[in-house]
Amino acid sequence: MKAIQYTTIGAEPEVTEIEKPSPGPGEVLLKVTAAGVCHSDDFIMNLPEDQYVYGLPLTLGHEGAGTVVEVGAGVSGIDIGTNVVVYGPWGCGTCWHCARGEENYCSRAAELGITPPGLGSPGALAEYMIVDSPRHLVPIGDLDPVTTVPLTDAGLTPYHAIKRSLHKLRGGSTAVVIGTGGLGHVAIQLLRHLSPARVVALDVNDEKLRFAREVGAHEAVLSDKSAVENVRAITGPEGAALVLDFVGYQPTIDIAMGVAGVASDVTIVGIGDFVAHAKVGFGQSPYEAAVTSPYWGSRSELIELIDLAHQGVFDIAVERFTLDDGVEAYRRLSAGTLRGRAVIVP
Amino acid sequence: MKAIQYTTIGAEPEVTEIEKPSPGPGEVLLKVTAAGVCHSDDFIMNLPEDQYVYGLPLTLGHEGAGTVVEVGAGVSGIDIGTNVVVYGPWGCGTCWHCARGEENYCSRAAELGITPPGLGSPGALAEYMIVDSPRHLVPIGDLDPVTTVPLTDAGLTPYHAIKRSLHKLRGGSTAVVIGTGGLGHVAIQLLRHLSPARVVALDVNDEKLRFAREVGAHEAVLSDKSAVENVRAITGPEGAALVLDFVGYQPTIDIAMGVAGVASDVTIVGIGDFVAHAKVGFGQSPYEAAVTSPYWGSRSELIELIDLAHQGVFDIAVERFTLDDGVEAYRRLSAGTLRGRAVIVP
Amino acid sequence: MKAIQYTTIGAEPEVTEIEKPSPGPGEVLLKVTAAGVCHSDDFIMNLPEDQYVYGLPLTLGHEGAGTVVEVGAGVSGIDIGTNVVVYGPWGCGTCWHCARGEENYCSRAAELGITPPGLGSPGALAEYMIVDSPRHLVPIGDLDPVTTVPLTDAGLTPYHAIKRSLHKLRGGSTAVVIGTGGLGHVAIQLLRHLSPARVVALDVNDEKLRFAREVGAHEAVLSDKSAVENVRAITGPEGAALVLDFVGYQPTIDIAMGVAGVASDVTIVGIGDFVAHAKVGFGQSPYEAAVTSPYWGSRSELIELIDLAHQGVFDIAVERFTLDDGVEAYRRLSAGTLRGRAVIVP
Amino acid sequence: MKAIQYTTIGAEPEVTEIEKPSPGPGEVLLKVTAAGVCHSDDFIMNLPEDQYVYGLPLTLGHEGAGTVVEVGAGVSGIDIGTNVVVYGPWGCGTCWHCARGEENYCSRAAELGITPPGLGSPGALAEYMIVDSPRHLVPIGDLDPVTTVPLTDAGLTPYHAIKRSLHKLRGGSTAVVIGTGGLGHVAIQLLRHLSPARVVALDVNDEKLRFAREVGAHEAVLSDKSAVENVRAITGPEGAALVLDFVGYQPTIDIAMGVAGVASDVTIVGIGDFVAHAKVGFGQSPYEAAVTSPYWGSRSELIELIDLAHQGVFDIAVERFTLDDGVEAYRRLSAGTLRGRAVIVP
Repeated sequence: MKAIQYTTIGAEPEVTEIEKPSPGPGEVLLKVTAAGVCHSDDFIMNLPEDQYVYGLPLTLGHEGAGTVVEVGAGVSGIDIGTNVVVYGPWGCGTCWHCARGEENYCSRAAELGITPPGLGSPGALAEYMIVDSPRHLVPIGDLDPVTTVPLTDAGLTPYHAIKRSLHKLRGGSTAVVIGTGGLGHVAIQLLRHLSPARVVALDVNDEKLRFAREVGAHEAVLSDKSAVENVRAITGPEGAALVLDFVGYQPTIDIAMGVAGVASDVTIVGIGDFVAHAKVGFGQSPYEAAVTSPYWGSRSELIELIDLAHQGVFDIAVERFTLDDGVEAYRRLSAGTLRGRAVIVP
Repeated sequence: MKAIQYTTIGAEPEVTEIEKPSPGPGEVLLKVTAAGVCHSDDFIMNLPEDQYVYGLPLTLGHEGAGTVVEVGAGVSGIDIGTNVVVYGPWGCGTCWHCARGEENYCSRAAELGITPPGLGSPGALAEYMIVDSPRHLVPIGDLDPVTTVPLTDAGLTPYHAIKRSLHKLRGGSTAVVIGTGGLGHVAIQLLRHLSPARVVALDVNDEKLRFAREVGAHEAVLSDKSAVENVRAITGPEGAALVLDFVGYQPTIDIAMGVAGVASDVTIVGIGDFVAHAKVGFGQSPYEAAVTSPYWGSRSELIELIDLAHQGVFDIAVERFTLDDGVEAYRRLSAGTLRGRAVIVP
Repeated sequence: MKAIQYTTIGAEPEVTEIEKPSPGPGEVLLKVTAAGVCHSDDFIMNLPEDQYVYGLPLTLGHEGAGTVVEVGAGVSGIDIGTNVVVYGPWGCGTCWHCARGEENYCSRAAELGITPPGLGSPGALAEYMIVDSPRHLVPIGDLDPVTTVPLTDAGLTPYHAIKRSLHKLRGGSTAVVIGTGGLGHVAIQLLRHLSPARVVALDVNDEKLRFAREVGAHEAVLSDKSAVENVRAITGPEGAALVLDFVGYQPTIDIAMGVAGVASDVTIVGIGDFVAHAKVGFGQSPYEAAVTSPYWGSRSELIELIDLAHQGVFDIAVERFTLDDGVEAYRRLSAGTLRGRAVIVP
Repeated sequence: MKAIQYTTIGAEPEVTEIEKPSPGPGEVLLKVTAAGVCHSDDFIMNLPEDQYVYGLPLTLGHEGAGTVVEVGAGVSGIDIGTNVVVYGPWGCGTCWHCARGEENYCSRAAELGITPPGLGSPGALAEYMIVDSPRHLVPIGDLDPVTTVPLTDAGLTPYHAIKRSLHKLRGGSTAVVIGTGGLGHVAIQLLRHLSPARVVALDVNDEKLRFAREVGAHEAVLSDKSAVENVRAITGPEGAALVLDFVGYQPTIDIAMGVAGVASDVTIVGIGDFVAHAKVGFGQSPYEAAVTSPYWGSRSELIELIDLAHQGVFDIAVERFTLDDGVEAYRRLSAGTLRGRAVIVP
């Protein structure tokens, strides 16, 4: 079967021909219907050899959707032909975090050598993929896999970040979204559907600000030197109740901390680099502003997100590519010329 | 192998000789080290034929501990020889509730025919038992299985009931425990270790009240006609912040509602009969008192409970029986002459 | 000044001429701009003499809006001329509940003889009213007092009931509203703005169901014998995550319990009579469904509600009356011929 | 009457003779029975003139206890002769935060010129003090004012910090307390009474570690270069669920971040200097560790704390001084030779 693999440190990924896998006991084989292309793929392919820990060749793709075509011994409760998306942050399934469905924070994954598809295990950028357990599948019914597959990461990551802060988003409060790309444009929609907060989006040019307004932002502000002042003019002295930074470079983190209010949540999602950071301390950050950097989301949150998708609340921007065009998709991603998410349709 | 089975509607359970099972794909075989005997076993064995839905013959025992002796195909992450207890309320593992580890509230168990061990599936009152998935096992290290096995139900059920109300138990507040038996005597200990609340226990005679004080109750009160008045003399006009009724007959439920305070939690755990109930309505129950009847607990809660056991916080009262004496254990249970939990040690 | 007072047990209220009050130390004098007429006024005026505890003559009106015209000694932080609404469930201000702004659950109000305006203290159905403390005022800026005043009870009561359950309202879940009158029609709007839940409204005739849909209900269902079945056809086997009963008679409470799901909240707000009630017990109510009967709301919740009103989310149905027509307003209320809330504009 | 006042920038405080105050409308006059001396007094007295904003002369003391001897016009609900402690972080009483009793985060205090006693308003280091509202008083009954007064800050600040994190402290989890002085030694006791967490205390010498163990720490570890390693040897790979830093210099904050686990809370309470800070960002802090710097606590929390004191859970270390010796108390505080809290007893 065809796959897109990262085969050589520092080189571009390539289209390869590999053997179609068979599901072992407890496993599920999917015929892939859609697979998302993500900045973090780019990130790991730019790592130097001594920091790269994901194995070679690596079939890429940690956002996957497919149809169940075969199940291994001992698998029950899921019918052949079911359309699903794949929960990506696989864990051991038994530790305390996994027992709550927070496999993204599994205590034993490293010890047991468990890795997500596309980030160690063979991923979704192929005609078929193995999912290690039916618990990592969420049925999507008749939703379009192409516009639904980004929800597994570009949706789940902001949903998790927002859900943990919903109790702070009351009438009259403000939520600030920095970065309106793959994750940010879903975050804006989620905030509008889940809370009464005023949503203020920040990005670097007018086209992106227009897009932010189209997907629901009440206000859109350039993330320039005056950004803090301009956002504070909107929030008033209370500042923002929630700030989500989907960029994660020092200038955006500084804006995030600058607009945050007392007892707010500041959540840094973007992996700009490994040096940028928020400073928290007495007199340096607003009283009781809680600053965190979370990772992906939980199993039940992905189920909730698919339920939201069935309610028709999302307008996910995607560009479609075939597996053969997949390398081009990564080039466009690197060049920053994609509108929304690149999705590979095998 | 030997087992204790319920074979004939209306008859006593009996010791039988059945085939030792083998683990299928994804399953785990335990050599049973301890198994608890519970009132709910008695309850189902007293059901008339048209209400009995658990299958015959039924190997009893929904509280199980054992040693992993064999695993089926596809099972990884658990070593042969590991000492474990069994999480009993098995669910599908994939629905929203199961994705949070709340398999006790699985949405699909009925549809898929999934039942707990000892309550449909073959239980722990045998030399060996099959557990359908490693996710239903919690390692216990060097804890004594005999005093630990009651935690899987007699511990988990009150722990779940208490944990959801902990935020209401502040300094100066009162928690009331009605019934100081298998579950109640663990509830008292949990309340003392997890909260600063004053713990008031109720039961029907002085011996049981003495026992309640021994395991940590600050006050112990007879559950007679004056119980409401006597408890209110302790709580003052605020009433109790949490009332746990482990009995569940109308007189105890009436006491529970009578001592509950504004915005309290009243939690009815006992299955006295199917008629007794609390009345909730304007002018009939304290403002915003939340009245519930929960069922068992979640996977992560059982892990937390085993962690608490490692801290040495429990003093679980048990009486030991062999498999051959198991029928006698049920007789003693029915007669109400057990002190604490009857545990079968094969 | 003119006032509407209840002067004789069993008689209609009447328009009277009483002395304009002066604010004592710590008090505030409002020129009333709007005052709501509520079912609970009717309720207390129908009480027999031995149950009536609100004093005579009683100036009615526990929903009040006004302009600050004078402040007593020691009052600061509020300017003359400020437009405000009045937080009604006055408490002592110092007990634990009051320290959290939950004056609706004040521990000392009875002991200290503190009563809400219109329910013991002189109310808002007058040209002027005294508010005992500036902490019971919420500025409303340029909001219309006539459509805003119902938020102080018809808005605050459902807001409190909804807010405590918001964490249960995820995508794909259902909230059921029984009764679409003064409180219910605000509840529907709140649910739509604060949660992604599907909102199902129940009432007794097609006109009311049409109204429910106009204010935002996704579905509207007759509250007849088939109501439980019809609602469950919408929710599926999961049942509703939240049921709000704004009626509170036995038939509506039975519907509420019949449509509630596992681990749901059932909240009985309506004071149908003092006999109707929900039954909670093992096998009689869904597992862990939490059944409560709350009362009014907290100070911070009223502030949040006014913030929501500034966002323009409410469409409050009102009929206007003068003080002179106030008795007629009560007649229309009793006859059930009002559309939305009757508001007196002095 | 006598008072201890800060009169000259850069000079020591001095004992002065000032006029006994009279309560205005809404105010309460206390005869002071005890007043705590705090590091933050020292901190503000070391500020250069251009940063000092508390007024001169300033009667010191933001921890106060006293007996009600006179009330102003309009004050009701509090009897002459009542023994009380004073809630210190005074706010406007009406904004959203104040409506929840979180006057420590009042939105309007700066605008209205409201300041805490001893930090702008005349404080408790005097024979008498004015409290601006009865809502800032908490009755203490027969508790000893000398050992109770430190609860108003040295108790309330850690209580607030701990309470917001209690849901993360389950069986088997670890709470780390850095600094075992006035606040830290109360934090250790609170953690032991409110949670099942293992408590690990850090400080700079063996005497302080011995003290930490005496007041309840399970483990005590030197806060030296090996501290992170030594604490992690206790927590295992999970790290700490809660870290409280009562020191707030860069080395202690670095330890705090070094021992924190995934999804933990790191709470920086100490005001070491205005430069030290925690760094939060992807790859730089544990996933979803929430880092905050809170300030003091809420009104209801102080009430809860006094309720805990009535349960006899605290062993507060104090050294007593008279007003005449108060300057000496400050000298001992600066020199770091106090054991526990210095309390002035007029």
